[in-house]
This record gives sequence, C-alpha cells and structure tokens, in this order.
Amino acid sequence: MMRAARFIAGDWGTSNLRLLLCDADGLAIETRTGPGAAAVNGHFADTLQSLTASWPQPQDGLCAILCGMVGSSIGWIQAPYVACPAKPEQIVDACLSVASRVHIVPGLSCRNRFAAPDFMRGEETQILGALHLAAELRQGARLLCLPGTHTKWVLLQDGVVSEFLTAPTGELFALLQKHSVLIRSEAAPDAMDVATFEDALARFKQFPDAQLLHRLFECRGRQLGGELTSQQADAYLSGLLIASDVQGALRALAAAIERSVYLVGTAELMRLYASALAVHGFQTRQLDGAQASLAGLFHVYQRLSQPALPHG
Amino acid sequence: MMRAARFIAGDWGTSNLRLLLCDADGLAIETRTGPGAAAVNGHFADTLQSLTASWPQPQDGLCAILCGMVGSSIGWIQAPYVACPAKPEQIVDACLSVASRVHIVPGLSCRNRFAAPDFMRGEETQILGALHLAAELRQGARLLCLPGTHTKWVLLQDGVVSEFLTAPTGELFALLQKHSVLIRSEAAPDAMDVATFEDALARFKQFPDAQLLHRLFECRGRQLGGELTSQQADAYLSGLLIASDVQGALRALAAAIERSVYLVGTAELMRLYASALAVHGFQTRQLDGAQASLAGLFHVYQRLSQPALPHG
Repeated sequence: MMRAARFIAGDWGTSNLRLLLCDADGLAIETRTGPGAAAVNGHFADTLQSLTASWPQPQDGLCAILCGMVGSSIGWIQAPYVACPAKPEQIVDACLSVASRVHIVPGLSCRNRFAAPDFMRGEETQILGALHLAAELRQGARLLCLPGTHTKWVLLQDGVVSEFLTAPTGELFALLQKHSVLIRSEAAPDAMDVATFEDALARFKQFPDAQLLHRLFECRGRQLGGELTSQQADAYLSGLLIASDVQGALRALAAAIERSVYLVGTAELMRLYASALAVHGFQTRQLDGAQASLAGLFHVYQRLSQPALPHG
Repeated sequence: MMRAARFIAGDWGTSNLRLLLCDADGLAIETRTGPGAAAVNGHFADTLQSLTASWPQPQDGLCAILCGMVGSSIGWIQAPYVACPAKPEQIVDACLSVASRVHIVPGLSCRNRFAAPDFMRGEETQILGALHLAAELRQGARLLCLPGTHTKWVLLQDGVVSEFLTAPTGELFALLQKHSVLIRSEAAPDAMDVATFEDALARFKQFPDAQLLHRLFECRGRQLGGELTSQQADAYLSGLLIASDVQGALRALAAAIERSVYLVGTAELMRLYASALAVHGFQTRQLDGAQASLAGLFHVYQRLSQPALPHG
C-alpha cells in the first residue's frame, strides 16, 4: 500500500529544482527534478503545478515547503532575510506563503566576524535539519561547515544561529581550474589524487601566516619544477584552497568550541574538508546535505501544521 | 639627422611582441609591435625578420636582445632559468644566442619563502633595468614589486636577486571580475572608484589574520546589504586582492628592509599598489615598467658588446 502523501518538500536553487512528495514522517515517496529559479522566467506557480500534476493537490490538503533561491530577488517572492542571532522558530515564523498552501523558507543574514554583511539562502534549512538529525547541536557552542560553491561556516549557540561566514571556495576552485594558466588539467573530480591533496594541506599548514595569493602560483611552479604532473595540479589547488578555508575559519570561529566540526554536504566534499580539519586536530561528524535539507523542510512542515499556540 | 641604430630591443611575451630599434645610448628610434609567442606557431625567425625588414640588418652589425616568453618552452629556444641568488652578470652570461646575432635573456628560478619552486621570465630584465635606473638598488636590502597578472615581489641584496615570490593577483582579479557571481559590473579599468578601493584596503587591514577567502564574499554581501553599488564592487574586489598581496608580501619579505618599496609597472597599477603600501607605512619609488625593460635590454646589449674580459 502506498504511504499517504502529506506535503511536498522542495529545494529550488538557482540552477536546479528538486521536489519530494513526502509522508507524515518526512520520508520521500516520490522525487521530481525541474528547472532552477534562473531558468523559469518567473513562472514559478506554473512550473510547480506542472511538475506535481500527478501528485495529490492542495485541495487534498497538501502543502509545499520550498527553500533556496525561490525566495530571493530572482525567485517567486522575496522572503526577507532573518537577522542573526536567529532561533529555529524565528526562521519558521518568517516563512512566506505564496499561492495556495505554498510556503517559502527565508534566508539568514548577519554581520560576520570580519564586520561584513553576510547572507545565506537554502543552507538555513539544512541547519534546521541538522538540529534534528544531531540533537546534541542544540546545546553548547557548535561549529558547522557546509562546504560548496559558497562554503558556509556556522556558529550555533544552544541551537541558535549566532553568526556565519561565507567563503567562495568551490567557486574559486572551479574558476581557477577552468580558466587559469596555473592549472592545465582535465582531471575528473572523482579522480582526485588524494596524496597530492594531502600534501597541499600539510604544506599550507607549514606557513600559517602566508596569504593564499602567495601559495597559488605553486600549482604552476611545482609543475615547472617537475614536482607535480598536470593531472596532480588540480588536487594540489583543491588542497591549498580548502586548507586556507579551514585554517581561516578555525582561527576566526573555533575559539570557544570543542575540537569537533559538523559537516553538512556531499560525501566527496565532506571527505576533503574532514581531511583538512584533521590536520588541525579536529574531528568531524558528517551529515548528508540532501538529508539535512529534507529534515529541515519536514521540520518547517511540522511546525506550520501545528495549531497556533498562544504567545507569551 | 637620424641617430645611428645599434641594436634591437625586444620584449616578446605570450600575447604581444614589442620591438624597439635603439641607438648607442639605449634610446628608442622606432617601435614595432607584433604577435606574441603563443601566436607565431614557432616562426620566430620569420616574424622577427619581417617586422624588422626596413631596419638595418645583422650584416650591418645590429644584434637583437629579446626577453620574455620567447625563451620559454613555447618560445624560440628554451633559455634555462638562472637560479637565485642571481647576480646581474650571471643573467647576462646565461643569455642564449639563436640565429645570427639574436640573444635571448633567461628567466630566474628560486625556492621561494614558502618553500615552493618559483619562476619569472621577462621581469628579470626589468630588474636589470631598475638596477640602472635607480643606482641605490645596488646596495643594501631592497624590496621590489612588479605588479601585474602575476605580481612578482623581489628581494635584492646588494644588487643580487636573492629570492622572489609570485602572486597571481591580476589574474585572479580578471577571473573574478569576468566570471564570478560575486561581481556583476562592467566598470572600465580607468573608472576605478578610488574611495571604494581605499575603503577595501582599510577594511582588510582591520583583520590581519583573516584569509582572503573569507573576505571575498563581501563584494557580494556589501551589494546585497546596500553598501556598494555593482559599479563599486570591482574597486572593492581590487582593493581586497591588492591589500592581501601587499600585506602577505610585507609580512614574508620586508623584515630586513627600510620602509620603502620600489614599484616597477604601469602607472595605474603602481598607483594602486602605492596606496596599499602606504596603508602599512611604506613609501614607494615608481619606475615605469616599459622603461625598466628597455634599460635592462640595453644593459644586456652593452655587456654582450664588450670585449670578453679574462676571468679570475
């Protein structure tokens, strides 16, 4: 017997849409993918409707919870950022409703450790999910790392998002790998040379006060010097970038935490960041990013489905 | 009366060739430009000959002194790098002759401050020139900065190139400006917003232990936060990158020098680096890069024209 559908969970990013039809326990029954926010030309309602036409409809009691760029200036509606420190319930309370029974999760903003305005959209839902997947996150000072195109480092204090910091580590890697004269390789991501990656981690740590800018030319210098093949150079670049990200983030944010970091992301990126954190003596706990996102959307669904409680 | 031509000075880079017909004082009589080393398909001799067909010829006693990528693996002939510490006369002695009376200046190599193999090709000629344009460089510990696509920081000890350090500052700026989601502006280089550039310098200095990676997202964050227009964002990016380059280079290399740096480059880049150095209390002396290159080629010409001296 098919489990009863209760809600639709959606992660609607710039480039991709992922919709899950879920049961009352937040488990996925069916999955659909579709165009990202940048590609739908403003037709969010139509896109959602056509992708979910064969699923139960709002009149059947279903709602949709959407996170990501769908709530941005290029999205369906602009869901204003919730300012940090942000409690989970503040994020849920700030969800915006559009159309009939469609709820959009807002992003977060903060003034980061380096006094700059910082923003996230989509990762806040993964954080909500992580708080449910790893209940110990709700207590004490905890550091999360969500590696990706724009890696987010997030400080939690008793389950409240107190601040975060963005590093465009993945974007810089892709740009340099694709366009720079420092790298001339076509190595596939799954062919990453682990030994070379780890060599870069160790060499970066030798000079903790160096600027990343003064280490990048090594990718080319070590090729010219015969120490790296062109196939190894991108693993070396990846190691330098992630080492810089990890070292700088720990220096900025890890003073008050135990020597452990929670990673939320893809298996491949979590493995790389775990290596880089181990170099500094930090242990990691790893949570799958897609699972965390779904858990966050489920949590939002649950809270929005509760009868309103009197405040005060 | 036309001054007598004595030699041809050539800066043959990857993308451009610049040839100058010079007199006995190293002054340019005529200039020609042509295709870079990457574009001539190995036809270096033919290219040189056709561009200089109307000039006096080798049989008239003229020689050509060429520097840059013409001496690299994509060049006319590979002129092996001279290892640092390198005296000016070692660089001249290592010039390679190809064809009839064509001399190619070698590049330099070193193990840099961060224990990586580092290389330059073309800038060594500007350094030779700078040693003649600013005679005081021949004494004491001096720091040179040659800003560009791959900025070179060079430590001189009594006129000997003791070591150097490469930062792909200009390349990273161009990549991020063109391809990154952090920047969405089309600002022309000459329209650089000086106040925004200087704001970035000051803000970078506030957090000397931050990694550049954790400052780059500011270019976008400050736009989202309404603190920067999209036109100002590239000046802010330029400020962050140059601030990082200058801060890291001074930390690595400036311990033993007076608080002054010699800049060799274009007027625009020297102005930006001079601002960034002033933030750290460093004065600058500025030498035009093209003039330094010509002075270096002239110096090589003079030494190669001298009758060989007995050694020992």
